[in-house]
Amino acid sequence: MAKEPKPIEELSIWDDAKAMIAKARAEGIETVHERLAQQTPHCKFCELGTTCRNCTMGPCRISAKMPRGVCGADADVIVARNFGRFIAGGSAGHSDHGRDLIEVLEAIIEGETKDYKITDEAKLKALAAETGIEVEGRELKDVATDVMENFFADFGSRKKEISFLSRVPQKRKDIWAKLGMTPRGVDREIAEMMHRTHMGCDNDAPNTMIHAARTSLSDGWGGSMIGTELSDVIFGTPTPKMSTANLGVIKEDKVNILVHGHNPVVSEMILAAARDPELVEKAEKLGAKGINVAGLCCTGNELLMRQGIPMAGNHLMTELAIITGAVEAVVVDYQCIMPSLVQIAGCYHTKFIDTANKARFSGAIHFDIEPHNALQQAKEIVNLAIEGFAERDAGRVDIPCEPVEIMTGFSNEAVIAALGGSLDPLVQAIAAGDIRGAVGIVGCNNPKIKQDSMNVELAKELIKKDILVLVTGCVTTAAGKAGLLVPDAIEMAGPGLKKVCGALGIPPVLHYGSCVDNARILQLCAALANALNVDISDLPVGASSPEWYSEKAAAIGLYAVASGIYTHLGHPPNILGSEVVTDLATSGLEDLVGATFFIEPDMVKTAEMFDERIKAKRKGLGLSE
Amino acid sequence: MAKEPKPIEELSIWDDAKAMIAKARAEGIETVHERLAQQTPHCKFCELGTTCRNCTMGPCRISAKMPRGVCGADADVIVARNFGRFIAGGSAGHSDHGRDLIEVLEAIIEGETKDYKITDEAKLKALAAETGIEVEGRELKDVATDVMENFFADFGSRKKEISFLSRVPQKRKDIWAKLGMTPRGVDREIAEMMHRTHMGCDNDAPNTMIHAARTSLSDGWGGSMIGTELSDVIFGTPTPKMSTANLGVIKEDKVNILVHGHNPVVSEMILAAARDPELVEKAEKLGAKGINVAGLCCTGNELLMRQGIPMAGNHLMTELAIITGAVEAVVVDYQCIMPSLVQIAGCYHTKFIDTANKARFSGAIHFDIEPHNALQQAKEIVNLAIEGFAERDAGRVDIPCEPVEIMTGFSNEAVIAALGGSLDPLVQAIAAGDIRGAVGIVGCNNPKIKQDSMNVELAKELIKKDILVLVTGCVTTAAGKAGLLVPDAIEMAGPGLKKVCGALGIPPVLHYGSCVDNARILQLCAALANALNVDISDLPVGASSPEWYSEKAAAIGLYAVASGIYTHLGHPPNILGSEVVTDLATSGLEDLVGATFFIEPDMVKTAEMFDERIKAKRKGLGLSE
Repeated sequence: MAKEPKPIEELSIWDDAKAMIAKARAEGIETVHERLAQQTPHCKFCELGTTCRNCTMGPCRISAKMPRGVCGADADVIVARNFGRFIAGGSAGHSDHGRDLIEVLEAIIEGETKDYKITDEAKLKALAAETGIEVEGRELKDVATDVMENFFADFGSRKKEISFLSRVPQKRKDIWAKLGMTPRGVDREIAEMMHRTHMGCDNDAPNTMIHAARTSLSDGWGGSMIGTELSDVIFGTPTPKMSTANLGVIKEDKVNILVHGHNPVVSEMILAAARDPELVEKAEKLGAKGINVAGLCCTGNELLMRQGIPMAGNHLMTELAIITGAVEAVVVDYQCIMPSLVQIAGCYHTKFIDTANKARFSGAIHFDIEPHNALQQAKEIVNLAIEGFAERDAGRVDIPCEPVEIMTGFSNEAVIAALGGSLDPLVQAIAAGDIRGAVGIVGCNNPKIKQDSMNVELAKELIKKDILVLVTGCVTTAAGKAGLLVPDAIEMAGPGLKKVCGALGIPPVLHYGSCVDNARILQLCAALANALNVDISDLPVGASSPEWYSEKAAAIGLYAVASGIYTHLGHPPNILGSEVVTDLATSGLEDLVGATFFIEPDMVKTAEMFDERIKAKRKGLGLSE
Repeated sequence: MAKEPKPIEELSIWDDAKAMIAKARAEGIETVHERLAQQTPHCKFCELGTTCRNCTMGPCRISAKMPRGVCGADADVIVARNFGRFIAGGSAGHSDHGRDLIEVLEAIIEGETKDYKITDEAKLKALAAETGIEVEGRELKDVATDVMENFFADFGSRKKEISFLSRVPQKRKDIWAKLGMTPRGVDREIAEMMHRTHMGCDNDAPNTMIHAARTSLSDGWGGSMIGTELSDVIFGTPTPKMSTANLGVIKEDKVNILVHGHNPVVSEMILAAARDPELVEKAEKLGAKGINVAGLCCTGNELLMRQGIPMAGNHLMTELAIITGAVEAVVVDYQCIMPSLVQIAGCYHTKFIDTANKARFSGAIHFDIEPHNALQQAKEIVNLAIEGFAERDAGRVDIPCEPVEIMTGFSNEAVIAALGGSLDPLVQAIAAGDIRGAVGIVGCNNPKIKQDSMNVELAKELIKKDILVLVTGCVTTAAGKAGLLVPDAIEMAGPGLKKVCGALGIPPVLHYGSCVDNARILQLCAALANALNVDISDLPVGASSPEWYSEKAAAIGLYAVASGIYTHLGHPPNILGSEVVTDLATSGLEDLVGATFFIEPDMVKTAEMFDERIKAKRKGLGLSE
């Protein structure tokens, strides 16, 4: 029974993290690491995925002596049910986020808000054209209305397939159609997943897994993609820019506001409010040298990509950022916000402010931010933070390091612009073998893994092999802190990648955005496949989430695999209690969708496996290995 | 450690059940009772609702020594998350069933099927008028198209409230609006529930519970109600008729086909095919005296209500029906179908046939029944059953009893017709105190409870007190076997109820349909409240699910409470690990929605509690107690 938390040295590769964990322990503040120790060992049944609580004839557990639940479900059925709901949870998270963007677009169109506007008209028109909406000679508002209606319909029950399947190579769509995997409507697939996993419905594990894949595809090519694209329309499509990362972005002499969560709808308003001259003046009058907004997690990524706002940290830094003692307010929207933050904020002068009705935190200060009142509410929040500056205990402030530089803003539009207007140079660089392939490293931290050890090591191993790396989500800060997100990082890359990135002045690891922005990577893969007239599964590409923890990460992994992308996880989901499900995930899917998951905790081996895969795929395309 | 199954005497109040459990044990066939014994004791954490598996930082369990999960969630948050998903599962089941009916209507309108038709045109028009669709002077097809579009929209993201809120008393709607509980779209609420319960979203248990209620309301007044109403449109609105129930409805000299599941879409076709003269002739040629279709569970209720098809049994009879050895085929659609049925069917000549892509059973024979091929597929299924008749082992056949008579078919339309065209006589009977109140007894069996002991005892106790009982779902067969569903049962009722039911020639316990048909009870309550110009919570009514087991039953219970109906459960859901959630469910909701759950395993006490509640509500209305 490991009830003692691990030594600090084993918890993170970062000095800022280790310093703050030490400070927390010195101050008697519990963090995720202490709670993980308390919760270890975990329940073996739950870990294996063989617990079922879907009715009150149970709860049931499967073992050799109890091979079936009360209803008769075996381990395969139970594991598939649980995994199906896990995927539904992740898909729902991203997709409900996407829906919120459609609602902001609706509020703009209907004149209910002046705080948001259509920033990238060209992108809106391009999206309209791509999804079969007439653009020529029409008012922007009319086009926007059709785009809004169409995206809302993507969440409904009437479509045979969601809009962005227009981006998917025909070969891939044919596979999905044959397997009954074509995503019809985002909410419909989620609700059907919940229905299927009710007692007495889907009792055939592979059938449930197929629907899990369908549900995840409705996230990747549906909810997430809508989230990304409409965020670009409303807040601007990202372009390359420089910023900074690590806890050093928190400034001792400023009012520090950390935005945390996933959706830019709130954080953009906080940023706008923080730039309000009256509020800046007020902050200065109270002795601060300004108002500093920094990001945590994915809403941080959103602000970083579009506004160049610095990143204070990723998932396992969220508690530690508060422990600097220099944070006046943590403003959250939803997802991945540890409820412990309320308690930790309570140990300092930090105000913890929640802003979404669907993500309330007991003990938080609540502001109900809606499109019609967003900026005004944001100003009140910033004002609260400013007033908190006076309450800061200087004796408890410790900002442990100087920030590192990072480059950000690699939307597909920006990449194509950098390439001179088309993907051809990228295709040529791949064909020539300068860029041998590409791997997206995405997702989270998990306190079971030394923070960012895998995220960073895998990126380094891959670029050495001339494999371009795209990062999103929590891997952003990891790569950034490791110095991988600057053009100079080409020195760590293989010769081909060094040549290409050097010529373009870009890093060998590109920041592609937040977790919903994995949709950008899907779109890029589809565009490459279409350019080569092949399926996505024919491309020399891969995906990895080495330190994942969330249902959303599992959904991302599954839509990647179902899209034909060979996908690595650093540890398995809770499926090992079923051989059928495990075998399907790690080998059987290859025959069905042309890709599988692979689970590997060693990053050198993982990089080798990607290397082998990329060699095989390059060979399949008639290219040098 | 109770690993031995209970003595047969303790498992059911019914002779047919006990005989078949004895036969199963003699033949070495495992049933739900053996599996329950194996699974007992259950995991205490899962029973309390304090296990969380919603991310891979865990799984976590809450106890005094581990008061928070790895993310920081406490028992309240974890219990609320789990309960929220439990409700989402139940709501999704009913509602996806409702969606299937809309799709059949669509297929009828678009001419894709000749197997289904609009049977009750008047009801379709009435539904249209109720939901704001113009009827006068329009073609039926155009009206039907608008109804279809409108109901599809009830599953979407665009509405501020679902259609059938037109039936809800304004006072009730105001309460929902104030609490943020107004159901907007069925799938949306389900998806949002999944989003809220992702790590780092809703971390305030009462807030999660409010959304659970909203989700359940989208089921009761949305998905379920659409399911009921469109089933009436397509298959006919039920009218009173006589039928029979118990295992005696299985006929030794006939080809026996049991339909099991919930949706009439498949079972109606099986019935139609079984009446096909060619197939009947074929059965007779093979030595059978015809083809006998009998019902299990709710699809049985659907056929019973509309076609008078006999009921072989409820939830805990589904395995036992096969053990008679006289069943040629079990044809299932979805929900509450124990996966063990495949194994048990395999112990006999019985063919187990699944028909829905979303509910496949490993080892089953699969027929993909779609609107365009339904009757043809059903004929093939019936043909398979006929051919199986020759394989029956007469030496293993044991049909343990003669069926009992039951009366069925009490739709609201039928009740109003019986009352002479309006609810006024019912209102007057309530006002006069002849009918002191009404309680719906609904839901399931649960092997933890002696089968139907509570279902029957509660019904008997209530009618003694002049409380009219409405039954649906698995309580139907319970009440029927107990002789409560015939007009003669008035002898068991109090004097007032005896007088009113005697005059009308109806039983004191009315069969109101399947589980989705609890929507009929909601509608009746709303109509009574509107007639009295009060809220539903002012009525002398209640609801009970004494032997519930499923997520759907929990959703039904919650939408009843949220609609203002005092609701009894024979045992609690897995929420006792949180005082906040338990207190809210069993007392706090009274202040919010004017009703609560109460948990009581003693049916005499339960009846007394309903009696007290009804007295108070009658007093509130200015009526005698």
